[in-house]
Amino acid sequence: MQKKSKYNVAIVGATGAVGVEFLKLLEDRDFPIDELRLLASPRSKGKKVIFCGREIEIQVLTPASFENIDIALFSAGGSISKEYAPHAVKAGAVVIDNSSAFRKDESIPLVVPEINPQEIFKHQGIIANPNCTTIIMGVALWPLHQANPIKRIDVATYQAVSGAGAQALEELRLQQQAILRNEEPVARVLKYPIVNNLFSHNSDMTENGYNQEEMKMVYETQRIFGEERLEINPTCIRVPIERAHSEALHVTFSKPMTLTDAQQILSKSQGVTLVDSRSDNYFPMPLLASGQNNVFVGRLREDLFDKTKFALFVCGDQLLKGAALNAVQIAEVLIA
Amino acid sequence: MQKKSKYNVAIVGATGAVGVEFLKLLEDRDFPIDELRLLASPRSKGKKVIFCGREIEIQVLTPASFENIDIALFSAGGSISKEYAPHAVKAGAVVIDNSSAFRKDESIPLVVPEINPQEIFKHQGIIANPNCTTIIMGVALWPLHQANPIKRIDVATYQAVSGAGAQALEELRLQQQAILRNEEPVARVLKYPIVNNLFSHNSDMTENGYNQEEMKMVYETQRIFGEERLEINPTCIRVPIERAHSEALHVTFSKPMTLTDAQQILSKSQGVTLVDSRSDNYFPMPLLASGQNNVFVGRLREDLFDKTKFALFVCGDQLLKGAALNAVQIAEVLIA
Repeated sequence: MQKKSKYNVAIVGATGAVGVEFLKLLEDRDFPIDELRLLASPRSKGKKVIFCGREIEIQVLTPASFENIDIALFSAGGSISKEYAPHAVKAGAVVIDNSSAFRKDESIPLVVPEINPQEIFKHQGIIANPNCTTIIMGVALWPLHQANPIKRIDVATYQAVSGAGAQALEELRLQQQAILRNEEPVARVLKYPIVNNLFSHNSDMTENGYNQEEMKMVYETQRIFGEERLEINPTCIRVPIERAHSEALHVTFSKPMTLTDAQQILSKSQGVTLVDSRSDNYFPMPLLASGQNNVFVGRLREDLFDKTKFALFVCGDQLLKGAALNAVQIAEVLIA
Repeated sequence: MQKKSKYNVAIVGATGAVGVEFLKLLEDRDFPIDELRLLASPRSKGKKVIFCGREIEIQVLTPASFENIDIALFSAGGSISKEYAPHAVKAGAVVIDNSSAFRKDESIPLVVPEINPQEIFKHQGIIANPNCTTIIMGVALWPLHQANPIKRIDVATYQAVSGAGAQALEELRLQQQAILRNEEPVARVLKYPIVNNLFSHNSDMTENGYNQEEMKMVYETQRIFGEERLEINPTCIRVPIERAHSEALHVTFSKPMTLTDAQQILSKSQGVTLVDSRSDNYFPMPLLASGQNNVFVGRLREDLFDKTKFALFVCGDQLLKGAALNAVQIAEVLIA
């Protein structure tokens, strides 16, 4: 990317749950912005947003929306990305895409800056942001993998409602109100009530019985780690939590992993906050991780039966490191 | 136990979360009761409960409370069980204890009727009811284990608040009200807010970094299955769910386990309801399992990398099969 003092940035899906985080992060991190162009569907036309004290009006996304844009941050779903990212690229922008549209395309970098930043510069116009659960798991496990290659990951997730979008998050609040009035919680966005309930992830099921979310954790982690033979078995579950995902990770390493080694590695790992106080049962939880940039890691423990196995529990803000922050970090590497 | 047409039954902890379920189950299942004696702490003295149309007054638990009692159902915590169960036994009662007080005592049967009913008749006055997570996992896995011995279980739990008692359940409701008023949720019973949050199980930590709840899943399952070399790695997590526990089970068998075999076995297993519809993403969830006797089992799937590994998701009512129902079922076997 051509070095400039300030860049023209577009956000596609500016009014969505991730879009709102893009705006906050760009402002908080002093991203050098000249023009900020906010794009969304006709539904949001004319809405106004305050960014760095300036009022910016949301524009309707069209193929012509990307003129003079340097960086386009997409988070409006896979079909919007597939349709409009090529227009952005044609207009000369680099697209950082938060959808799953391009993640399987081997010619498009799939990047977590803590893991494979070198991939960023191989882009041909589009860089893909991985799935939120994949990013959060990857940030915690990559430094351990560097020291002692991982052979297998058994992971069960506790995924926040924000991952299903801003409307699902609103639905959680409405359902919380409903049950306190002794009314039946109504499920419109998600298939089943989520208040006082949890269920198998709402993504589509694939033929092998793993849902799309689970399959993303398998192939995206393999791609990002550059380990196509890494075994991963995910169980992805949606829980009544607002915006931080948690994951119970049971990991098999190539050789024994001791508690001391894991502590030493994780206490100095990039993007990781180690929260692991056994004496007062203080470990990662959504309450701590929500609104935070780092992935919280704890419950470190050696397996009781097999020295090559090791368990940990991680928690990360699904909208930040799981989505908007990771994309903005990619943009920061691009312009560095 | 001497055969009678009706039995004198005592409930210790009659006003607790499990005690309430004991009352409902004994009534619903037409347990042949002559006298029902309800015992609790002085706090509940004089409270009245309706059972089968009769009003029964709660009595204060004392060492002399068990005269003429045939069966004493205990669910008032481990220290009460340790102190009062010997008095009940001395008075001639058989104690079925829902606490962890006697579960490690090899001379005291630890029983899930679907798994090891033969142990019931080895009792010397006390029979122990296993931990709720252990029962729910065991009911689902035992029939598979019979067909293809299990070598290892990696399990992550999603545990309901009822497991921490009636006061914790009330705290969840108060916290749900608080956040809707934009107030901070107050945690008094549990250490951290549970609404919009989840955290490592609130039981005490042991030296190896596994908490008591996790260690119960290890040694209780080994004992009930009669497999002291069975490897188990549990991660136990408390979630904002009222009364049904869920568990993601990643299981390693001795030989390959196919989807067809698992379906066939589980569709005719005692105490199991198979809910496994991939086409409409319909699987076990607390909404289905709450208030139900059976353990709901689904998300059956073969591992993507290792034919001896197999994954499933289970959900069971923590107060019913996880506690009161299992104890009542033991009593039913005793008098059969």
